[in-house]
This record gives sequence, structure tokens and C-alpha cells, in this order.
Amino acid sequence: MSISMSSASLPVFVRMLSNLDHMLVKAQEFVEVKKCDPAALTQFRLAPDMLPFSRQILIACDAAKNAVARLPGVAAPKFDDTETTLPELRARIRKTLDYLNAVPSDAIDGSEAKEITFPVGKEATRTMTGEAYLKHWALPNVFFHVTTAYAILRHNGVALGKVDYLLGADA
Amino acid sequence: MSISMSSASLPVFVRMLSNLDHMLVKAQEFVEVKKCDPAALTQFRLAPDMLPFSRQILIACDAAKNAVARLPGVAAPKFDDTETTLPELRARIRKTLDYLNAVPSDAIDGSEAKEITFPVGKEATRTMTGEAYLKHWALPNVFFHVTTAYAILRHNGVALGKVDYLLGADA
Repeated sequence: MSISMSSASLPVFVRMLSNLDHMLVKAQEFVEVKKCDPAALTQFRLAPDMLPFSRQILIACDAAKNAVARLPGVAAPKFDDTETTLPELRARIRKTLDYLNAVPSDAIDGSEAKEITFPVGKEATRTMTGEAYLKHWALPNVFFHVTTAYAILRHNGVALGKVDYLLGADA
Repeated sequence: MSISMSSASLPVFVRMLSNLDHMLVKAQEFVEVKKCDPAALTQFRLAPDMLPFSRQILIACDAAKNAVARLPGVAAPKFDDTETTLPELRARIRKTLDYLNAVPSDAIDGSEAKEITFPVGKEATRTMTGEAYLKHWALPNVFFHVTTAYAILRHNGVALGKVDYLLGADA
């Protein structure tokens, strides 16, 4: 017995992005109740040299999308990163989930030892085996940006708890 | 080909906790350079109803420790949660890493379908298969608390970047 590469990636990304979408619903409710400018949330940064909330969402989406494209070695759809509002960010998550849900498991399975080369920054690339790439790059990146988005919302008073981050964890 | 349960857990936890320790080294340097009270960092919360930095470290450690004990079905060593200073928190990480490094792979392998029952809150328990527990509970929890610790340090001006979180990702 063991875990397949598709099982270790697709359902984890789908759940985390679904939970991220759920957090955006709560963020939307928050700005409506508080009657505040939604940009105060979407442009919020935890530090001046950290990326704002909106970019945390885009990168979480892309980290998942790129992983399930790179492992089979196909080109991921390119999204233009124009989303800034909460509804637009939710639509981006939905587009990403649609893409993830359409990736066939067998396209990803068997990629454990495959060499995956991917861009790092503007000019460099890095090469890792599929298994290392998934465990030590793709998963940490998705969790990082979802958690950072959660932290920004919590810092600003949106009523979230760990249950929202782990939502569906009993499924 | 596929990923074993031990390979999907042990090296991921070891790397994340090693990177967390590395962040604590940078936090220690920060308080020395700034000549500020280290407790201003270790007791910092991103929201009044979030746990402080020190607890993020303890929970990250325990999430990893408990996972690699629950999957084989052995009792994890109980640590007393007395650590509050940066050196004490580093020692807690070291103790946890020593424990993780001593878990034999074959104790964890084969636990994919095993029912894992674990406490949630003070009175409830939850039961998941080993694979679901690892992917949807243990990993998300470890990443959550390491990232939250990172966010607290970044918010307070400690010079960290994504590379510190992903450190060693080319290994």
C-alpha cells in the first residue's frame, strides 16, 4: 500500500482552495457588515515588503495549478492576474478548482522520479524529482499562501477559526 | 511507483521544523540587534484571540510529533509546554526533531487505511484513515503553525523571506 502522486496532490489542493474560497465568503460578509472598503482587506499586507492579500490568493491558486501541470508535463492555462476584488478573487479560485478537477489522476501518477524543472524568480530555474517537488515545494507553497491569507483576515478581525482552514477535514 | 506514508510525512515534518528553527535563529539575532525584549516577539499575537508566537511553535512541534506517533499507534512522548523563551523554543524543536528522526519508516508505512482516532479540543475525538489524517489534518496543521510563526516574525520586522520557509527545498 502507498499513496499515489495524484492522491497526494489533487485532493489536498482542492480542499485547501475550497477552504480559501470559504474564507473569502467570510471576508465579503465582514466588509458588508462593517461597511468598510473591501480594498482595505484585499490590499492589506502583514509587512510593507510582503505581498497583499489579493496576491496571496493568486499565488496560492497558481502554486496548485502549476504543480498539477508540471507533474504531467503539460502547459498550465495562463491567467492574467487582473483579479483584485473579493468576487474576482473568488472567481480565480473557481477557475483554478475547475482546472484541478479536470486533471486526470493517471496524468500525475507515476511522476515520483520524473525530473521537474520550474522557474524560480525571473531568470533562474530549479530541478527536483516529482516527489520532492510536490512535498517540499508545491505543498509548502500552497499551504503558505492560504495560511498567510488566513492570517491577514484574522489580523483584521474577520471571524475565522482553525475549523475554517481545516474545513471538510472529516470528509 | 508511489509515495510511502513515511516518505510523505517524516521528511516533510523534519524539513519544516528545521526551517522553523532557522527562523528562530533569525528572531534571536533580531532581538539582539534591536536590543528589544524577546518576549515582545514570543508573546506576539496577530489578533487578540489568536495564539502567541511561542504557542505556534509548540503546536507545530506537537502536530508533527503526534502524527508520527498516531500513525504507528504508539504513545508520543509528552512535553510539558513550559517553553517560552527563544532558546527554550529552539530546544523544543530540537527534542521534536530527535523524536522524528528516531521513528522507523516501517512503523509508519502501511498505515494508509488504518483508522486513526485523535482528540479534537478538550472532549471530542475524530477518526480518519491514516492517509486522510496525514493529508488533511497533520500536514495542514504543521504548515499552518510554521507559516503563522513566520507571519508573526515578518510582521514584526524580522528579515525573513520565502527562501527561509522553503530552505533546503533543493535537497
